[in-house]
Amino acid sequence: MKNLPLIYALLLVILSLAEARIRHYRWEVKYEFKSPDCYRKLVITINGRSPGPTILAQQGDTIVVDLKNSLLTENVAIHWHGIRQIDSPWADGTEGVTQCPILPGDTFRYKFVVDRAGTYLYHAHYGMQREAGLYGSIRVALPAGEAEPFVYDYDRSIILNDWYHRSTYEQAARLSSIPFLWVGDPQSLLIQGKGRFSCSTPGIAADSCNTTNPECSPYVFTVVPGKTYRLRIGSLTALAALSFEIEGHNMTVVEADGHYVEPFVVNNLFIYSGETYSVLVTANQDPTRNYWVVSKMVSRNNTTPNGLGIFNYYPNHPSRSPPTIPPSGPRWNDVGPRVNQSLAIRSHPDYIHSVPQTSDRMIILLNTQNRINESVKWAINNISFTLPHTPYLISLKHNLLHTFEQTPPPDVINGYEAYNISNPPPYISATTSNSLYRLKFNTTVDIILQNANMIDAGNSETHPWHLHGHDFWVVGYGNGKFNVSEDPKRYNLVNPIMKNTVPVHPYGWTALRFVADNPGVWAFHCHIESHFYMGMGVVFEEGIEKVKKLPTSIMGCGDTKRFIKP
Amino acid sequence: MKNLPLIYALLLVILSLAEARIRHYRWEVKYEFKSPDCYRKLVITINGRSPGPTILAQQGDTIVVDLKNSLLTENVAIHWHGIRQIDSPWADGTEGVTQCPILPGDTFRYKFVVDRAGTYLYHAHYGMQREAGLYGSIRVALPAGEAEPFVYDYDRSIILNDWYHRSTYEQAARLSSIPFLWVGDPQSLLIQGKGRFSCSTPGIAADSCNTTNPECSPYVFTVVPGKTYRLRIGSLTALAALSFEIEGHNMTVVEADGHYVEPFVVNNLFIYSGETYSVLVTANQDPTRNYWVVSKMVSRNNTTPNGLGIFNYYPNHPSRSPPTIPPSGPRWNDVGPRVNQSLAIRSHPDYIHSVPQTSDRMIILLNTQNRINESVKWAINNISFTLPHTPYLISLKHNLLHTFEQTPPPDVINGYEAYNISNPPPYISATTSNSLYRLKFNTTVDIILQNANMIDAGNSETHPWHLHGHDFWVVGYGNGKFNVSEDPKRYNLVNPIMKNTVPVHPYGWTALRFVADNPGVWAFHCHIESHFYMGMGVVFEEGIEKVKKLPTSIMGCGDTKRFIKP
Repeated sequence: MKNLPLIYALLLVILSLAEARIRHYRWEVKYEFKSPDCYRKLVITINGRSPGPTILAQQGDTIVVDLKNSLLTENVAIHWHGIRQIDSPWADGTEGVTQCPILPGDTFRYKFVVDRAGTYLYHAHYGMQREAGLYGSIRVALPAGEAEPFVYDYDRSIILNDWYHRSTYEQAARLSSIPFLWVGDPQSLLIQGKGRFSCSTPGIAADSCNTTNPECSPYVFTVVPGKTYRLRIGSLTALAALSFEIEGHNMTVVEADGHYVEPFVVNNLFIYSGETYSVLVTANQDPTRNYWVVSKMVSRNNTTPNGLGIFNYYPNHPSRSPPTIPPSGPRWNDVGPRVNQSLAIRSHPDYIHSVPQTSDRMIILLNTQNRINESVKWAINNISFTLPHTPYLISLKHNLLHTFEQTPPPDVINGYEAYNISNPPPYISATTSNSLYRLKFNTTVDIILQNANMIDAGNSETHPWHLHGHDFWVVGYGNGKFNVSEDPKRYNLVNPIMKNTVPVHPYGWTALRFVADNPGVWAFHCHIESHFYMGMGVVFEEGIEKVKKLPTSIMGCGDTKRFIKP
Repeated sequence: MKNLPLIYALLLVILSLAEARIRHYRWEVKYEFKSPDCYRKLVITINGRSPGPTILAQQGDTIVVDLKNSLLTENVAIHWHGIRQIDSPWADGTEGVTQCPILPGDTFRYKFVVDRAGTYLYHAHYGMQREAGLYGSIRVALPAGEAEPFVYDYDRSIILNDWYHRSTYEQAARLSSIPFLWVGDPQSLLIQGKGRFSCSTPGIAADSCNTTNPECSPYVFTVVPGKTYRLRIGSLTALAALSFEIEGHNMTVVEADGHYVEPFVVNNLFIYSGETYSVLVTANQDPTRNYWVVSKMVSRNNTTPNGLGIFNYYPNHPSRSPPTIPPSGPRWNDVGPRVNQSLAIRSHPDYIHSVPQTSDRMIILLNTQNRINESVKWAINNISFTLPHTPYLISLKHNLLHTFEQTPPPDVINGYEAYNISNPPPYISATTSNSLYRLKFNTTVDIILQNANMIDAGNSETHPWHLHGHDFWVVGYGNGKFNVSEDPKRYNLVNPIMKNTVPVHPYGWTALRFVADNPGVWAFHCHIESHFYMGMGVVFEEGIEKVKKLPTSIMGCGDTKRFIKP
């Protein structure tokens, strides 16, 4: 008993240490009318905003987000994109994989550690809610005393997005319609939540579009002449691959998905949904004028106007239009420069994470567009993925194996050797399934993303694939069909970049390597919202037996209702 | 052991008896594009249809509906309107009151007995989903050998509805907006799911409206000359009070909300949301032509065109337009005939349910429109009702009393004597609350619905109030302010009709009496979708200790998550 004061003192120290490293957010999610591109529609906001609040933290901090769902009839879940959720796989926020959705009226606590400095994102991971505006930035700083391998004066974050005027319900219902109805090109491109739609477009009711609404004033990036800015750029487009540029200013790429890259200079940055980059830009041009910031849709023919913002040299007025015509950006169908950028991204020499020189397993994921029954779907190795209604993490941990199909998907399709990726898919029986890949814990896995021709002849799209729970090394890109015996010889096993999202280019392949060392269940999918909805994804399980006791807060749906014992 | 054959035989008899009385439905709910009034929008369908399938049963049958929620991100719940749910209060389908909502992917089993012949309805009871098209008819026949106190040749059901082009999300977001945005007049009136909107209305995109779509061909009621039809009419309007008529044909009202009425003849039937009537109509007019069926919005000034159908004398072509101009119906603001119809509805003399001559408790519910903070709300006794997120039935049965406010609402407001119903509400502090009335089991309760002036001077609306779990006797209507000492002397305690839904007319009052003899928790609310959303309702508890073990299928939301024990 005489030690009580000491114990209290110790407790206080521990608490104060702990408190310094916990960042606590209280967020309320609801529908509100917003006009991000001047057209008024329902947007899912966080605390009244879209994009939502930026999470600012330091490496090693614990983030606590108490998320209150104030939607009327609709559930929600938020994914912390790029955060590996080590020791917290239940906090990944992927509905159907790691948690049941959060019901209206409920408050769900996300708690996880941001264990590595860098630029990350968060967004809804349920249905197609991301498209409704539920997204934001996560910026994790280095620990005190540590420095990046580059210098800058100021730090800024923006998220690039595309924007549809239809509701996510309509978009999803179109994709499920027979005959299939495509979601169409986005109506506009947003830069940090701001875009511009032409209200004089025929068929637009006057009271739903107002170009003088301050919500759709152009995005302004104000700079002081001579200063260097670290601009953290993330893309959360529903569909669009983008080219981003700042008129008259080069950008030096220094970070990708939280990893430092060997710096390289670009005039325009290609960025795919789910990727983040840091670029350095110096305000070293004529300071008496402003410059255009341009976001342009590439990789597919489209009708979407470029997104425009203003690079504003202080003290010019931020709304002063640049005297020039905005740069028109690269041609949408010029694949070469995009592949070249992919190839240019290598690890910074001082920050190389050694890549295992061999792998234990190779999984070749053939990406095809297929017809299943009368629907159009995307399939991976002839399987169009569907989410189960009981989250895998719970099913696997609590032995509810009847809730999903137990036959695993194949590591390579039968007849892969003979498959001609240059032709539309032959009429083969693609099916839907919610089966998953089970990976041996701590093994090294190679994934080959193999692109192919779509249903329509002469067309192959770019797909940005995002892996939950891991970073992977990008060990190779190639044109055409992957050659199992030859191509691995040319892998970059010296200084490959680590990323969490990577494109597979039209008619090409991309090779990744990762170590299955994070106990949990992890989605890996095309980050195009409608493509994942149409089945373009797989799921990996690893080390489920090492996952600690699951919080009951992730339960309540599907077969987990059997756990209700009042 | 030698009795086994006998036991088997008995079991078979029991099973076959039991099976004959169970009506099993498998329904799948999802969003589909439909054009009920020629304008294409997302509709919640059941098995591809809106209105959904009609439930056809016989008195005493058990209805089993396995409801699969195939909405993408949205929950659902269905209320069986007019079914008292004796011994099954958990099957009432009222989200927040009797159950947690049904999650996407889940299949919920509703199981209840239809214990009385008559005309009933079902519809969503969650958010404003009813407006999205999730509704249908329940028709319960008399037991074999029993006959109604009227004769007819054929039996038909229709549901009248109003129809909005905005999504329910937009409607709800408007009502919650600051400043308040009204939902507006309905775009059209539907008769059994069919209406007609003018596609040439300015601002309507050509590809979203098509007057030649067969989905919006007019409703046709084909009759054989000389025959008499029992037409069961239900209204599930979101807003509109309606007048319904068949050009040139009188209608004899014979049933109201499942009770036989002393027959009376009308030219047009006034019907409020939540009510059902059976009328007899005889095809006794010139059979060489067709006649108009007209549904018209009354009780509030409006811009909604009348709904038109065709009363088709066989063998005339069903699409042949009548040679006449459709009847224009009664003036919207002529209250007298509507009150007169209410007064005319009395119990059929051979089917009188004796009404208790005294009551144990009187609750006067003052209906006012109020501003709370900056919102517009409806309040009952200065309390604007909000639903809790843990259903009352579970909270009360399992002692989760912290989940809602425990101070009960008042039986009459302070200062009721001095309240002037002819003026806009004085600036008094209406509040929001989720508290409920607790009724002593088996007592007789009088409810006085007292109407009043709205926020705007010179205006008082009609509100149809619907009681769950009971029928009530309609013992009186009056103009102006209810007089506690005098008006009860004039109650009809001889042959009042029993109903589950009743209007309170502008600046008037309606008096109801019911016996609190159905263990459970029961909503009582204005059936106008937006009014309930804005707080116009109360909840009654009675005999909670007599409620049997709750099924766990109704749990999983709010505080019931604490019951999850894997």
